[in-house]
Amino acid sequence: MNELELISRLTENLPTNESVIVGPGDDCAVLQGPEPGRHVLLKTDAVVQGVHFLSDTPAEKVGHKALGRCLSDVAAMAGKPSAAVITLGLAGPDSADWAQRVYRGICDLSARYQVAVVGGETTSSQTPFISIALTGEVASDRCIRRSGAVPGDALFVTGTLGGSREGKHLDFEPRIREAQWLATLYTIHAMIDLSDGLASDCLHICRAGGVGAELFGESIPVSRPARLAARKGDSAKPGLLAALTDGEDFELLFALPASEAVALLDDWKKQFPDTSLRCIGKVTEEPGLRLREKGRIQTLKAHGYVHLQ
Amino acid sequence: MNELELISRLTENLPTNESVIVGPGDDCAVLQGPEPGRHVLLKTDAVVQGVHFLSDTPAEKVGHKALGRCLSDVAAMAGKPSAAVITLGLAGPDSADWAQRVYRGICDLSARYQVAVVGGETTSSQTPFISIALTGEVASDRCIRRSGAVPGDALFVTGTLGGSREGKHLDFEPRIREAQWLATLYTIHAMIDLSDGLASDCLHICRAGGVGAELFGESIPVSRPARLAARKGDSAKPGLLAALTDGEDFELLFALPASEAVALLDDWKKQFPDTSLRCIGKVTEEPGLRLREKGRIQTLKAHGYVHLQ
Repeated sequence: MNELELISRLTENLPTNESVIVGPGDDCAVLQGPEPGRHVLLKTDAVVQGVHFLSDTPAEKVGHKALGRCLSDVAAMAGKPSAAVITLGLAGPDSADWAQRVYRGICDLSARYQVAVVGGETTSSQTPFISIALTGEVASDRCIRRSGAVPGDALFVTGTLGGSREGKHLDFEPRIREAQWLATLYTIHAMIDLSDGLASDCLHICRAGGVGAELFGESIPVSRPARLAARKGDSAKPGLLAALTDGEDFELLFALPASEAVALLDDWKKQFPDTSLRCIGKVTEEPGLRLREKGRIQTLKAHGYVHLQ
Repeated sequence: MNELELISRLTENLPTNESVIVGPGDDCAVLQGPEPGRHVLLKTDAVVQGVHFLSDTPAEKVGHKALGRCLSDVAAMAGKPSAAVITLGLAGPDSADWAQRVYRGICDLSARYQVAVVGGETTSSQTPFISIALTGEVASDRCIRRSGAVPGDALFVTGTLGGSREGKHLDFEPRIREAQWLATLYTIHAMIDLSDGLASDCLHICRAGGVGAELFGESIPVSRPARLAARKGDSAKPGLLAALTDGEDFELLFALPASEAVALLDDWKKQFPDTSLRCIGKVTEEPGLRLREKGRIQTLKAHGYVHLQ
């Protein structure tokens, strides 16, 4: 049983109550806030030594990554992050320095987004880990889900993809501001943050919306590290496979009506001149994911990083 | 540096924002809800193999314990739990069965308290762990904190204490209903759930309120396992040391005006005939914690279980 099968088993018939608007399966859970018109977002995520960071990774960057992953999920729903609680699994009494440096990384990032760190605990664990839970909020009419993409929509991606392991996975900037700007000014039908890899995450949007997608290979923005690392012959475009499957890009992938595409690209350049935004494909009625490259079309599967496989 | 010193370092100068009513240092964080008069509670907690459970502990009970600990903290603030997200650290591909049984334990307990399980994730970890974040809510005028105890208050404890490792730590019932009942009908000045042990947790109430306490040794309700396990001579009362220091009792300790004590004991018996409630001491102006037993008074320190020591 791989991770996806296991998660699907675990999320069958979960207890629910009247406050739940979106349960498992989206970037965050969405709960009815006490005030009509405002939703509460809730996300948890963990980074584990040996999986998401190494014993010699600078501890501040481990903290940055741990919180950044949660922030990226709140961004994917166009939410505003509010408060975080932190659980540290520490390997022994000499972890105190490491723990303080992890907290420094967490607090530097949270201060930048006005996120309050409101509690947590430390516990012993042979394998060090950091588990963070984050709340956020969003106006109910601006909450963007994974579902909702419509055939004909244009697919956009922020930043450049692939090769995150070369460093970006430790110091990416969650796209909080970009997502809020998008949801305020444009008709975003569906959005997700890229954690598993473009192919895998685009399939999440397709399945959630009961649609398919065609990606334009030439338009996919490949990061410099992915281009440098690409072996000749892995694709017509160096690094394309990495951009599709490496994962941990923490960029936004979203669908909006094609009629808004040109205006968006124009506005974006003025608003976020240092961050690229590319139209990389379109939503189709035909299910599944296809890549068009130099006139050839091939079917893509999710090759993103799947734990436990 | 022990755990308490580390936590005190980690919680210095944490980022905050205008939504924070209670930050680190109480049973839960308390956030301003969007609606005036309602507070949002937030708690995270982890159980780790080798620390909180063993590799042969029945997985359903591990799940029960993981969620129950968070519920107990929400109870300590007289809150109503709302929604949980779960992170599982799994040791390998053959953990799928274990994970499903853990979820069964979590879901059985959450269904009992109308808690929605709204998401989570699985990750690889050499040391299996479960980290849960739980939200709750409480009317702002019924939220009970650790601080607030007043000299002269009576100290009460639910249930019996000590010897939790003999089994109770895996199948305790969080005192959600009892706490809500108490906060609705009585003037509860301060409350905490007993996780570190009566001595240690009573000191938390004392320090938070700038007061002290005197405990009556003869009145402290010692559990049957603690009495059976007590070695002769460890105290004038068999099992008293265990009741004071074992921890993981997950009972409520609270302070209320002495004038309400008799009425409370009377009402309690009718409302919760199967759960004992004992007046075990009083709040004093003199700081620190003292134990009065057979006419002798001795000073107590926190001997509760402190991780990393």
